[in-house]
Amino acid sequence: MMQLYIANKNYSSWSMRPWLVLKAFDLAFEEIQLNFPCERGEGDFKQRVLEINPNGKVPALLDQGMLIWDSLAICEYLAEQYPEQALWPRDVQQRAWARSISAEMHSGFTDLRSLCGMNIRANLAEVGTKLWQEHSGLRQDVARIEHIWVERPAVDGFLCGEFSIADAFYAPVVTRFMTYALPVSANSQHYMQRVMQHPAMRAWVHAASQEAMWVNYLEPYQKPAK
Amino acid sequence: MMQLYIANKNYSSWSMRPWLVLKAFDLAFEEIQLNFPCERGEGDFKQRVLEINPNGKVPALLDQGMLIWDSLAICEYLAEQYPEQALWPRDVQQRAWARSISAEMHSGFTDLRSLCGMNIRANLAEVGTKLWQEHSGLRQDVARIEHIWVERPAVDGFLCGEFSIADAFYAPVVTRFMTYALPVSANSQHYMQRVMQHPAMRAWVHAASQEAMWVNYLEPYQKPAK
Repeated sequence: MMQLYIANKNYSSWSMRPWLVLKAFDLAFEEIQLNFPCERGEGDFKQRVLEINPNGKVPALLDQGMLIWDSLAICEYLAEQYPEQALWPRDVQQRAWARSISAEMHSGFTDLRSLCGMNIRANLAEVGTKLWQEHSGLRQDVARIEHIWVERPAVDGFLCGEFSIADAFYAPVVTRFMTYALPVSANSQHYMQRVMQHPAMRAWVHAASQEAMWVNYLEPYQKPAK
Repeated sequence: MMQLYIANKNYSSWSMRPWLVLKAFDLAFEEIQLNFPCERGEGDFKQRVLEINPNGKVPALLDQGMLIWDSLAICEYLAEQYPEQALWPRDVQQRAWARSISAEMHSGFTDLRSLCGMNIRANLAEVGTKLWQEHSGLRQDVARIEHIWVERPAVDGFLCGEFSIADAFYAPVVTRFMTYALPVSANSQHYMQRVMQHPAMRAWVHAASQEAMWVNYLEPYQKPAK
């Protein structure tokens, strides 16, 4: 059986993407969660990851003795291995668009990603209001994402109609928009609700909200409860 | 015929990747070069890109009325459109590895990419020596890249034996290592020579070295000749 190595569900947006794809398409896999240390460099997280992945990062997929790392490469691998399911859309034009927006997410949106780190269980609405006012780069990133989302074929559907890898790539953004209460359009909120209602997403978000572990360097905006 | 929109060959590492793939596999395309402005925000570069690509960036590929943007999505699209050629390696394990290292390059190596911007025609060996001493993150990025390169099957071959998308993804790194004269192993130098000798690479590098246009915000380390 495939093994997917991930980190904390509350914080690890990169882990979330291939996990959602595996779950959404009901592909059999074993999940191995290695939690980030409380302080950077502490504990054996890095060492345990290095034992399976020389680049020292999660997510990483082990399948039939092969190691595939990086969220996008894992998703492309899965799409190839399971051609009977449409992990990417079947239509060539939709697929090209899905790959374009997924690759754009993979390398871009640095202001959103650095200012609004994924933190599913948190409510950082006040922080979000302040960040929104102060950072034009954040506002530009959100505007671009909304421009992408509004292109989807049906307001109540996923980015390419049915759930695909593209939705998994934007799923962490959905949680960021909620955690930081960023002011997005009604159309975007429709999409966010659609994603949040997906069974795979519900399972991940539920598990994330149950995680008690506090990672100091991923919590720039709040202090742990005493 | 496909149209590939690119920016300055001297500076635009993202443009270089799909261009090399198109050339190396002899796929017919028209190249449309839109040069960066001398100062950020000047001129009509952004506007001209926005006319074809709503995310305002190059590279962008137009094919049969479809727009595909982002270097990795373009390469995946081409690999799919031309299955008679091995744009990705034919072997599933090599292909999974090629995708992993290409995706890793696509989202990672931020120290190398930010400190040692691509500047093919320049000789910044002294700058490189200083950066090397001062930035452990740069040294770590280079060590990781050398760790990847040494995995290739033959010392005188490409990353997966024959030239593939993976080599195109690391080609800008080859020029960076040369421009900044970073101290890499003999094994890495073998690979760099192999890449530099590829006809597609020679054509790009030659064109880049002929470009006179000076882009101030991409030249943090030198002043234009009077």
